[in-house]
Amino acid sequence: MSKYDIIVLGSGPGGYVTAIRASQLGFKTAVVEKESLGGVCLNWGCIPTKALIKSAQVFEYLKHAEDYGLKVKEAEADFDAVVKRSRGVAEGMSNGVKFLMKKNKIDVINGFGKLKPGKKVEVDGKEYSADHIVIATGARSRELPNLPQDGEKVIGYREAMTLKKQPKKMIVVGSGAIGVEFAYVYNSMGTEVTIVEYMDRIVPVEDEEVSKQLERSFKKNGIKIKTSSEVVSVDTSGDGVKATVKTKKGEEVIEADVVLSAVGIKTNIENIGLEDVGIAVDRDKILVNDYYQTNIPGYYAIGDVTPGQALAHVASAEGILCVEKIAGQHVEKLDYGNIPGCTYCSPEIASVGLTEQQAKDKGIDIKVGKFPFSASGKASAGGNKEGFVKVIFDAKYGEWLGCHMIGAGVTDMIAEAVLGRKLETTGHEVLKAVHPHPTMSEAVMEAVADAYDEVIHL
Amino acid sequence: MSKYDIIVLGSGPGGYVTAIRASQLGFKTAVVEKESLGGVCLNWGCIPTKALIKSAQVFEYLKHAEDYGLKVKEAEADFDAVVKRSRGVAEGMSNGVKFLMKKNKIDVINGFGKLKPGKKVEVDGKEYSADHIVIATGARSRELPNLPQDGEKVIGYREAMTLKKQPKKMIVVGSGAIGVEFAYVYNSMGTEVTIVEYMDRIVPVEDEEVSKQLERSFKKNGIKIKTSSEVVSVDTSGDGVKATVKTKKGEEVIEADVVLSAVGIKTNIENIGLEDVGIAVDRDKILVNDYYQTNIPGYYAIGDVTPGQALAHVASAEGILCVEKIAGQHVEKLDYGNIPGCTYCSPEIASVGLTEQQAKDKGIDIKVGKFPFSASGKASAGGNKEGFVKVIFDAKYGEWLGCHMIGAGVTDMIAEAVLGRKLETTGHEVLKAVHPHPTMSEAVMEAVADAYDEVIHL
Repeated sequence: MSKYDIIVLGSGPGGYVTAIRASQLGFKTAVVEKESLGGVCLNWGCIPTKALIKSAQVFEYLKHAEDYGLKVKEAEADFDAVVKRSRGVAEGMSNGVKFLMKKNKIDVINGFGKLKPGKKVEVDGKEYSADHIVIATGARSRELPNLPQDGEKVIGYREAMTLKKQPKKMIVVGSGAIGVEFAYVYNSMGTEVTIVEYMDRIVPVEDEEVSKQLERSFKKNGIKIKTSSEVVSVDTSGDGVKATVKTKKGEEVIEADVVLSAVGIKTNIENIGLEDVGIAVDRDKILVNDYYQTNIPGYYAIGDVTPGQALAHVASAEGILCVEKIAGQHVEKLDYGNIPGCTYCSPEIASVGLTEQQAKDKGIDIKVGKFPFSASGKASAGGNKEGFVKVIFDAKYGEWLGCHMIGAGVTDMIAEAVLGRKLETTGHEVLKAVHPHPTMSEAVMEAVADAYDEVIHL
Repeated sequence: MSKYDIIVLGSGPGGYVTAIRASQLGFKTAVVEKESLGGVCLNWGCIPTKALIKSAQVFEYLKHAEDYGLKVKEAEADFDAVVKRSRGVAEGMSNGVKFLMKKNKIDVINGFGKLKPGKKVEVDGKEYSADHIVIATGARSRELPNLPQDGEKVIGYREAMTLKKQPKKMIVVGSGAIGVEFAYVYNSMGTEVTIVEYMDRIVPVEDEEVSKQLERSFKKNGIKIKTSSEVVSVDTSGDGVKATVKTKKGEEVIEADVVLSAVGIKTNIENIGLEDVGIAVDRDKILVNDYYQTNIPGYYAIGDVTPGQALAHVASAEGILCVEKIAGQHVEKLDYGNIPGCTYCSPEIASVGLTEQQAKDKGIDIKVGKFPFSASGKASAGGNKEGFVKVIFDAKYGEWLGCHMIGAGVTDMIAEAVLGRKLETTGHEVLKAVHPHPTMSEAVMEAVADAYDEVIHL
């Protein structure tokens, strides 16, 4: 029986990063993977969707070339080629992880891993033992009872990434990051898209003003949006799909070629031996302490299978922290209040911390500042006037409570707010950190200035 | 005679921002402008060049549409339309400043302002007085003796922005930000570009590795580069220009339609009355203290006319600080060691703090980390694998000495380093600030990790 210091179950952005950090720390490490190295993120999530989105963005440029003084005859999106590029990027990244495993001397055990008592993992009948076992099996697309996925007409994100034919009409159920990203991609390439959202606004976890801005942008680009609505039933008996949707105004039937169900995720905790080992679970999540230890010594869990935001960067951070703690390093527990969230449609969305409403609900006296990109020189020059940066400060203590951005490139701008908040910056310090001109990042400085009535360009 | 609290001479990003902040602080303010509100930056610099660059970038997408799974027939850059768009953006911004002046109740005095003793300014024969006069007259393109500008065949940045016809061949003399930005724009649109740089590398103020990367990228895209070279003379007698260039290998004659001289700037300090008032000048610069007071009480100077980086954001920051000090606010003097610099060609360049060589020259024991975008998932998905982030830390005290980036979108990413350095962050804190996945900004975190031998994706 092979013996390791650490075995990691799952090789997504939680698992493979955990394994690399473990190896760096001197542990003999193995990772168990049932499918492709890199997990959903690299193969079916973060990365290939960003490739699709890039193609859609470039296609938008082709369609609007004239706005930039350019002439184009016959611009066309080759759906197959767009999908193929996306798959190529995913494959390249997965090969990259393979290389990293080799370089870090991490054994990759292919197969479905099942936990056994006594700190063992069984993979295809073979047993492996370790001093520490880290569960990082992630999650998959959640199915709604009224919307069973058949993989052809009613699909999840996986199928949405590799459709054989571009649908003429598509219904996207759910408007979280995954839903709106696919809505953007398909709409850009010419599919008629209808979003159905149960809540009263799209991207409902974001600040309300962000939701409003995205709805405006999406509608302007022809996406139909039905909020406070739900799919009651789907009829897939004919050529396409007939979805009966309950809206604010009553029931209506919407026809489409496919329905994409993007209503959240379900953790992969079935059949991995949690019960045999006696690992405590609460509903869909494995219970862990601040250092990702489960109730059973020697078993840990990180990433989507645990409480906390189901995001790739959270999984990676948890995994690193988990093995650094095992190595006896002094670690600081993760601040789940300072985790950025990004949505990569156009306009992009990025946010961290409290929304205005959340801050108010907590009874905090706040100062709010907002700077629209329409007032930014760089945004004008780049043709990116849509969106804004909004900041929320504690009026009494000056703490930067939240930062909400919507616009071009904001997913690369939120890091400033994350680092600033980690370092307990005040608004004044952000204001006096000289931001380069002309950049979109000036909008952060100006939004802070607005909160303190010192904004220049408004 | 009109009397103001503050009169600002010049309405560039130094002057108009100073005026707005002054007005916010309750001062009766006027700004004197001889030409267009917004100065060079808005009308002939930062903003219109970014518009040209955006057109060039979109044109690059058209040319490489196939890389993204898209098909295009006959893509063409309409040079006139590209220039027109750029002028439109500049005009819009200048009108924006007009609006801001009105909104902030700032009087705009049109004409050439001349300082008079007794805190007075004369504009077209009319005198205005003020308690405080802020000189913000900026700078213009510097002329080399061997390269006199005729505005047609030998031009400066101004003419380069509004050429009537796209040149077939262009020589760009000087490879600072202005030079390489125009080289990028014209090369992208089909002009054959040769850069002539006196120093041994292009963008010589940047970290050496940045220079090397840009040279590789530019050469790959067909730009010819002659470093350690200088233009000895130009012959404009024929149809085009014949430039005699002294290179490492000897003299050669390069023919072109136009030569763009981009060899730095010359301050606008002539004929503005400095001598009459007795304001001290050292060579090309007006001497000021930490609060921008000149040697003569009541007269201040900010922006390009003073020592310190000749950058729009520096001018704005100086102006704000200057009038806040006048208003009696507690102000912290500007940290010229934490001023970001940005260059907007593709790949973009952004940097702040010391280069590796500068740190070594100071005898500091350093830790250097570097993360190439070729290892970034987001960069792969976006087709932006060129470039890297490089960080330099003090090995002993952990101070973040410098950050150097080259790649897509980095001009919007440098703000994180500026704020982090202002807040005296350590590398560990940057590392533990959870950067969102997948973004280009992860490269900052990974570069820091590399400096401390904890990099994951290398």
